[in-house]
Amino acid sequence: MVMPSLEWENSSQTVKMIDQTKLPHKLEFLTISTVSEMAQAIKTMNIRGAPAIGVAAAFGMVLAAKEGHNFNLDKFTDSLKQAAELLRATRPTAVNLFWAVDRMLSILSNPTISSNENNSLKKEEIYQLMLHEAQEMWQEDIKRNRAIGKHGAILLKDNDTVLTHCNAGSLATVKYGTALAPIRWAVQEEKKTIQVIADETRPRLQGARLTAWELQYDQIPVKVQSDNTAGLMMRLGKIDKVIVGADRIVKDAVFNKIGTFMLALAAQYHSIPFYVAAPTSTLALEQREKDVEIEQRDGQFEVAQVMGFAQESITPKGVHCIDYAFDATPMELVTAVITEDGVFSPEELIQYYLKDS
Amino acid sequence: MVMPSLEWENSSQTVKMIDQTKLPHKLEFLTISTVSEMAQAIKTMNIRGAPAIGVAAAFGMVLAAKEGHNFNLDKFTDSLKQAAELLRATRPTAVNLFWAVDRMLSILSNPTISSNENNSLKKEEIYQLMLHEAQEMWQEDIKRNRAIGKHGAILLKDNDTVLTHCNAGSLATVKYGTALAPIRWAVQEEKKTIQVIADETRPRLQGARLTAWELQYDQIPVKVQSDNTAGLMMRLGKIDKVIVGADRIVKDAVFNKIGTFMLALAAQYHSIPFYVAAPTSTLALEQREKDVEIEQRDGQFEVAQVMGFAQESITPKGVHCIDYAFDATPMELVTAVITEDGVFSPEELIQYYLKDS
Repeated sequence: MVMPSLEWENSSQTVKMIDQTKLPHKLEFLTISTVSEMAQAIKTMNIRGAPAIGVAAAFGMVLAAKEGHNFNLDKFTDSLKQAAELLRATRPTAVNLFWAVDRMLSILSNPTISSNENNSLKKEEIYQLMLHEAQEMWQEDIKRNRAIGKHGAILLKDNDTVLTHCNAGSLATVKYGTALAPIRWAVQEEKKTIQVIADETRPRLQGARLTAWELQYDQIPVKVQSDNTAGLMMRLGKIDKVIVGADRIVKDAVFNKIGTFMLALAAQYHSIPFYVAAPTSTLALEQREKDVEIEQRDGQFEVAQVMGFAQESITPKGVHCIDYAFDATPMELVTAVITEDGVFSPEELIQYYLKDS
Repeated sequence: MVMPSLEWENSSQTVKMIDQTKLPHKLEFLTISTVSEMAQAIKTMNIRGAPAIGVAAAFGMVLAAKEGHNFNLDKFTDSLKQAAELLRATRPTAVNLFWAVDRMLSILSNPTISSNENNSLKKEEIYQLMLHEAQEMWQEDIKRNRAIGKHGAILLKDNDTVLTHCNAGSLATVKYGTALAPIRWAVQEEKKTIQVIADETRPRLQGARLTAWELQYDQIPVKVQSDNTAGLMMRLGKIDKVIVGADRIVKDAVFNKIGTFMLALAAQYHSIPFYVAAPTSTLALEQREKDVEIEQRDGQFEVAQVMGFAQESITPKGVHCIDYAFDATPMELVTAVITEDGVFSPEELIQYYLKDS
C-alpha cells in the first residue's frame, strides 16, 4: 500500500485518515481537527489496529496542544492531561495507545521546555515537540513494520498459503502492516509467490472488508472464509502458516482479535506454525493474562445487525448478543513472535525483552 | 415447539413446511405438491437439518408416487427411482437422506405388492405403503428425539450453560430436536434451569436465526455469539457443556456444520464435555472420514452477501469466498454420542452399533 492509513497535513494542521468504516466499497478520507474528533474516530473505529491508533492518539495529543494555544500554561497542561485521559478511554485493550499517549505526555517534563521562561513560547515549543514526536512515531512505525516484514519473510516459503485473522495490515498501522508485513516483504522484495486466506473476522468483518481490500489493492492473491472454516482448511492441508497481529502481548498470552485463540488451537492440533507479528510497543511482558479485562462492544450492532450490513437483524428480536472484541491466546500455542528486532520463540521473547527493560 | 417443521396434509395430499429461510422474522409455510418442489425445498434449504430432510425426502418419494399415478407400472417404478436420484443429489453429506430414500425404495420389493396382479392397484398400494412409511418415519423421529432428550438430560446439571452450534433443534427435525432435545427435556420434564448460548453459525447463520428463534419461542434463555467467541467464553469459565448435532457419524469422525471441529478443539483444551446428539440414522460407522467429500456452497451468496442479509457485499468485488458446509471432528475430541438408545463413549458407540449391524 502506497497510501498511509493516516497522515499529518501541515498546511491545515489536521490529520487526514482513511475512513475504514467505509471500506471495502468506498475509499473516503476524514479530516480530523480536534482531539475529541480523534477520540471519536478511534472509538467508532474509523481508524483501528493497535499501531495505527497509537500514532492516531499521538496526533490527537498534537491537536490538543494546538487547541490549547490560548490557554494559560496551567490550563494548557491540564488540557493535555485531559486529552490523554480521553484518548486512553477509547480502546482499553490496545497497549500502544497508552504507550503513545505516555510518550507524548513525557514531553511536558522535557528539561528544555521548563527552562523557557516565556509561557507562550513554552506552549509553542511543547506543540512543536509534540508534532515532531508524533511525526517521528509515524516514521518509526513504517520502519518497524518493514523490519517485521524482513524478519518474518524468512519464515515463508515460495508457494506458501498463509492464513491471517482480522486486519493487521497496512490499514492497521501507518503503512505496510504487521501480520501482513512478512507477506508483503516475501512477495515484493523476495519475489516469492504467497497466497493469503483471510478470515472474515466476525463480528466486525475486518478480514473480509480490510485485509481482502488491501491485499487485492497490492495484487497479492487473497480469498476470504468464515472464521470457523479454518479448522477444516488446516485438516485438508490447505494452510501452511498462520500469521496474526496482536493488541497486547503479556507474559503468558497474546491478546488479539476475538477468534485468534481458536485459530491457534487448530494450528497446534495440525502442527502448523502460528506466528504473531507485532511491534515491541505491543509488549507488556510485566503483565499476565489475568490482569487484562477484555473490551465488550455493542452486540446488537456488530453481531445482530452485522455491522450495519444487514437490512434486518440476523437474530430474533429480544435475543441478546455476546460481543467480546478480543481473546487471549496462551503463549504455549504460539510458535514465534516476530518483532522489528527479529523472530523470537516465547521463551526467547521473555529473555530478550524482560532482560532489556 | 408444538409446531412440527413439516407435516403431511391428508386433504390436499401435500406437505406443509415452515419456510426456514424466512426465519427469524417471519413464520411462513410452504405447500409442497411434487417431488421436484421437495427437492428444490431441500436444496435451497427451506427445510434443513439431517433428520428433517430425511423425513422430507421420504415425503418427496410419496409425492413422486402420487405423481406417477397415471404411468404404466414400469414407468411408475422408473419414476420412483428417478425421484430417489433427484432427492439424493440435493444434499450429498446428509446420510439420513440416503437412508430415508432407500427405506422408501425398499417398499418396491415388498412381497405383498409383487403378488398383486392388478397394476393399478399395485401402484395405489405402493403409494399407500409409502405414505404409511413416511408417516411412520415422521412419528419415529419425534419419538427418537424425545429418547435422545431423556438420555441426554442426565448429563445436564441445574444451572448449566450449554453451548450449541448451528441448529439441531426442533426445526432440524420433525419436532423436539437432537442437540436441543436434552436441553428441552431437562427444562420441561426435569424443571432444571438451563441457559443456552447459540453460535451464530456462519455462513448460513442457523444459530442466530433458528436456534435463537425456537428457544425463545419455548422460553428457554438463549444468547447468541459469533462462532469465534466460543474459545474465550470457555476460557472465562462461562460454558459448562457443548452439545451439537451431526449430519453423519463415521467410525473416526463426526461430520457436522462447519465450525463444529474448532469448537471441539476448544472444548478439549478446557476439559469441557463435548457431546454429539444424533439419531442412529445418522450413523455410517462402516465409513471413515477420508471416504466423505464435503459439500461446498455458494460463497458469494452465503459468505460475501451474508445469506442475503447484507445490502452490499462484505468483501471487495472480485475476491473469492471459500464456503464449505461441514467439517469433520475427529472422534478423539468427542466425549460422548447421545442417540435414542443411550449415551455412548466413542468406543462404546463402535462396540454397540457395529456389533449390532
